Amino acid sequence: MRMINVAAAQTGPIQRAEGRDVVVRRMLALMDEAKAKGADLIVYPELALTTFFPRWYMENRADADGWFEREMPNDAVRPLFERAARHEMAMSFGYAELTPDGHHFNTAILTDRSGNIVGKYRKIHLPGHAEFDPERTHQHLEKRYFEPGDLGFPVWRNLGGIMGMAVCNDRRWPETYRVMGLQGVEMVLIGYNTPSVNAQKADEGPEKRLFHNRLSAQAGAYQNSCWVIAVAKAGNEDGHPLIGGSLIVNPDGEIVAEAKTEDDELLVHPCDLDATAFGKQTIFNFAAHRRTEHYGLITSRTGAIPPP
Amino acid sequence: MRMINVAAAQTGPIQRAEGRDVVVRRMLALMDEAKAKGADLIVYPELALTTFFPRWYMENRADADGWFEREMPNDAVRPLFERAARHEMAMSFGYAELTPDGHHFNTAILTDRSGNIVGKYRKIHLPGHAEFDPERTHQHLEKRYFEPGDLGFPVWRNLGGIMGMAVCNDRRWPETYRVMGLQGVEMVLIGYNTPSVNAQKADEGPEKRLFHNRLSAQAGAYQNSCWVIAVAKAGNEDGHPLIGGSLIVNPDGEIVAEAKTEDDELLVHPCDLDATAFGKQTIFNFAAHRRTEHYGLITSRTGAIPPP
Repeated sequence: MRMINVAAAQTGPIQRAEGRDVVVRRMLALMDEAKAKGADLIVYPELALTTFFPRWYMENRADADGWFEREMPNDAVRPLFERAARHEMAMSFGYAELTPDGHHFNTAILTDRSGNIVGKYRKIHLPGHAEFDPERTHQHLEKRYFEPGDLGFPVWRNLGGIMGMAVCNDRRWPETYRVMGLQGVEMVLIGYNTPSVNAQKADEGPEKRLFHNRLSAQAGAYQNSCWVIAVAKAGNEDGHPLIGGSLIVNPDGEIVAEAKTEDDELLVHPCDLDATAFGKQTIFNFAAHRRTEHYGLITSRTGAIPPP
Repeated sequence: MRMINVAAAQTGPIQRAEGRDVVVRRMLALMDEAKAKGADLIVYPELALTTFFPRWYMENRADADGWFEREMPNDAVRPLFERAARHEMAMSFGYAELTPDGHHFNTAILTDRSGNIVGKYRKIHLPGHAEFDPERTHQHLEKRYFEPGDLGFPVWRNLGGIMGMAVCNDRRWPETYRVMGLQGVEMVLIGYNTPSVNAQKADEGPEKRLFHNRLSAQAGAYQNSCWVIAVAKAGNEDGHPLIGGSLIVNPDGEIVAEAKTEDDELLVHPCDLDATAFGKQTIFNFAAHRRTEHYGLITSRTGAIPPP
């Protein structure tokens, strides 16, 4: 057995007026609780340091730059890195990244037990839209504020296992898990902020949104025989509700832990990385069963083209 | 609305000693029941005409040729084609195909309302093994008796919609649905024979097998915003149990009908093909959101290669 005790650190809402200092204090409290429960790794949500700002339309995009981090770590988050190193706990969280040359990404990082950043991922599947859309019940302007990630779906060796990351909407796309599965991924860490109502279909509420969250994570785990840790920022941010439902899913696609609240809530579960081996060696032995000669459209065609 | 009334015609077991005549009579009874319930399309299982013969090891592969059909239709199945045409019902079923030039495939066909074959699919993801394996609780010799399909994952216009097919183990692979999704598929028809116990993991029984069946079909439907019709051959064939659990899944990934028995059982559900549009135009608008530049490994690499 290669056991990793994983803490999924769901956070409740972060209001627009709240600063990073408030958030980081809450994250530290979750980290201390995780340490008390013996966690080796703590996973926080997407855009963990701020409110989910892509719901706010700013005509001048640069007006959003205050939500972005220009370096990582920086002064605001240094207490997280120091505490994690002291606890000898690896850590992953998401944040808005502004690069020195002016690029904007929806990013997540992964550290080792010493607080060194060993992995960086930039969200590839940006949902939503780039311009103000009066048809929607609320705005979801990720395509306005971020560029699609440019780092692919890498994996890293950490804590004795092979880990990958994805962010929010990435989890709905089987390509996300498969590209990592083809690199032998054993655990995928995913943060998300998911509005409780579909902005384009008002009768699609939180129950269905939670169902799709579970379905996507469970299928990705099963079909690649890996652990999936999916962590929400949840609750009501300035009148805009987000689902909770953070999950730990085993390599059989079964949910082994699920958050019950829409607030700061810690799930801790012992994850045996060796439990990924059976699926990878049998039904999802890719080398034995995949037939890439018939998958060509997946990479050669972006949009759907119906037959004549 | 573009309504198709779909009949998922699960069949119970077919014993090794039973002839095609016995099976076809049962299939005709299900077809008549489907007609009485107003079905436009009836979907039968994988290898619908015989017992699931890949469980039987034959040293000389040619000894299995008696399970194969050398032409389609042939005398044994002509009553099905004639009755379907009389009922103006489209039809799909699976069978073992032996081509004039000696190739063996695990095949499914699709007809129009007049009994004309409009589509043929040959199973691509063959599970199991090619040689007798004393380690298994039972044999699963699909890699012995069949070649991988050579027709890709085509789709066809039929009954006013866009339809595709897959066979059994194909349904566990997201590539299957995605290649069809990229052709705008609105309904995927899948037959299966799934042993109730994992041959390599005796403690994996029918509950987990049914769970994986549901998970795979639901994820494929949701992630491509299409209907999935998954139809079992079920029950105890000569001492070897197969799961039932035939399903009709809507484009939101929700199960709208599920078989309760392991016997001949008909599920009939009205499927609105226009219900596929919302997902295809929003969250799974492939043209807007897919990033093929990061999917390269899916087609360039067959087996998993862990990082150094």
